[in-house]
Amino acid sequence: MKNKLVNLIGPSGKTLWKILDEWDSSLREFIKVMNKAYREGMISVKDNRIFVTEKYKHLIQPRLRVKRCGRCRGKLIEFREKKLLKKFVEIVKNRPHVKVEYFQGWIRPIDSIRRIALMDYWDGIADKNIVLIGDDDLESIALGLTNLPKRILALDIDENLLDYIERVSKKFRLNIETLAYDVSNPLPKKLLKKFDIFSTEPLETISGCLAFLSRGASLLKGKDCTGYFGLTTLECSFKKWQEIEKELIGMGFVITDIIRNFSEYPMSDPVGDKEYEDSLKRKLPFKIRGYSKINWYKSWLFRIKAIEKIKPKFKWNEKIKIEVKDEDDITYPY
Amino acid sequence: MKNKLVNLIGPSGKTLWKILDEWDSSLREFIKVMNKAYREGMISVKDNRIFVTEKYKHLIQPRLRVKRCGRCRGKLIEFREKKLLKKFVEIVKNRPHVKVEYFQGWIRPIDSIRRIALMDYWDGIADKNIVLIGDDDLESIALGLTNLPKRILALDIDENLLDYIERVSKKFRLNIETLAYDVSNPLPKKLLKKFDIFSTEPLETISGCLAFLSRGASLLKGKDCTGYFGLTTLECSFKKWQEIEKELIGMGFVITDIIRNFSEYPMSDPVGDKEYEDSLKRKLPFKIRGYSKINWYKSWLFRIKAIEKIKPKFKWNEKIKIEVKDEDDITYPY
Repeated sequence: MKNKLVNLIGPSGKTLWKILDEWDSSLREFIKVMNKAYREGMISVKDNRIFVTEKYKHLIQPRLRVKRCGRCRGKLIEFREKKLLKKFVEIVKNRPHVKVEYFQGWIRPIDSIRRIALMDYWDGIADKNIVLIGDDDLESIALGLTNLPKRILALDIDENLLDYIERVSKKFRLNIETLAYDVSNPLPKKLLKKFDIFSTEPLETISGCLAFLSRGASLLKGKDCTGYFGLTTLECSFKKWQEIEKELIGMGFVITDIIRNFSEYPMSDPVGDKEYEDSLKRKLPFKIRGYSKINWYKSWLFRIKAIEKIKPKFKWNEKIKIEVKDEDDITYPY
Repeated sequence: MKNKLVNLIGPSGKTLWKILDEWDSSLREFIKVMNKAYREGMISVKDNRIFVTEKYKHLIQPRLRVKRCGRCRGKLIEFREKKLLKKFVEIVKNRPHVKVEYFQGWIRPIDSIRRIALMDYWDGIADKNIVLIGDDDLESIALGLTNLPKRILALDIDENLLDYIERVSKKFRLNIETLAYDVSNPLPKKLLKKFDIFSTEPLETISGCLAFLSRGASLLKGKDCTGYFGLTTLECSFKKWQEIEKELIGMGFVITDIIRNFSEYPMSDPVGDKEYEDSLKRKLPFKIRGYSKINWYKSWLFRIKAIEKIKPKFKWNEKIKIEVKDEDDITYPY
């Protein structure tokens, strides 16, 4: 791990945020490794940049010249619907701020659009029934603007957010249905097995994530239906990924795609994100001034496909006990 | 499925190979759907192109304008080591032809190079011990040319191929070790737990695939080691994917990445590939002249990471009964 860190920092040093941008394990490990490396004198901080100290520079290994694709940023696709993107960006400018108390965070508008574009490229969204389980990314609005799906339902715990979505839907005739819903509660029976595709950015505790995914599973019609969701490695360790993957397979799904760093959380929201960054910085052994300009907080996009009878981990009418926070959670400030 | 086919063909018709290029299920289903659609008069063939008939054109749905990234072709990364690529291409020009009897096929040189580049980008290959389980893609040579790994071992059943690799290794001082090895046999004990990374394009029967992956698992040192392998959907149905994913998780791995269509098999080898295409064409209800110019036969790249004690499905000293062919196999001509 220390070698990994040293290689990641490289010979000329990097800002904290740039290092995090390329970090592919959990924040918990990051903090542990940073603290240890700093204590042992492997790294130093100067002018807000982190360097490998002279004594340890010999550990830096040569690498091939490889970088994330400059055109698609490693997101596989080119997206040509500029008007759609422009309209979406214009609309969501007035979105409500993220609420830390609901663990909200929203991915960049361009990534929301890329996500539905990929959904269309892979599954076709025309004439489909699509449900969003939690919609702080406003994917319902992006989908609505395409005019392609037959039905769009946004479920969220946050009634203010739903009010906003409804207002936008009415104004632009997007025909989005909304429903105030807490994933720990049973699902309304009339929604069961009504959807072709679900999409969600779940809570990243095991119980939280499996609650979101179980609800998604219960809402799908059955075989050949697909689900899209994002997981970070930052607050959802690979150990938890493994558990989640195992449960998904047991629920009747196959994992078809995992795209690293597909969704970027913009570090610019005046309410949420500074608190998240502060809470990370407090855990490091040195002082870093200011906030990031790059989107180091990213989730990896999963696509799953039902290939047999769907067996949700939690039954639709079951009340689920959800932990909203576990030992991997670093950015939650309270 | 028929709707999927009709949407895939689109309003202006496509060649067989272009349709296959975008097909994301098995060839077995492809043949079934094509036969049915043709029998029912949904599709017709003219001038070697397949069209949706007028009567069914109304089923074609609108799509967003999305396409595979033109720069990286959906492979995430840009690769700047042009000299390395050039040298590799130059060397492998003289490679032995693929042998149908060993189910060989080789991915495009640029994709072999992209694969090791990604391996370096994600894991760092400098100073690593890397083992190839089957090496018809000549990845050992690509790795050797970087001069970065500490140890490269190519295992293959085909002694002629190994002779070729040895000759190249000697000529260019690549320091590649080779060993004639059939995955159904126990592993040499001295190789156990000696490697940081394995890479393979396994047989696509369940028993074959799990044999390759178990051997890979036995060769890895343990926690934090990674494996790279390719699976097609064409001859390895999602049902089999699901089984393989389940077993991998049971073996102590987490699946970290799945990149669709990462490795393309060039349809140009004078021995192997025409036979593969003929054998597919014989199963279709209409005649298609000639062979493809596009690389429609592709595998999806998996990266797995050991996150706990590795428990190979088949023990290292176990003889494994391998089926080389199952009902998904369409291209094997005999």
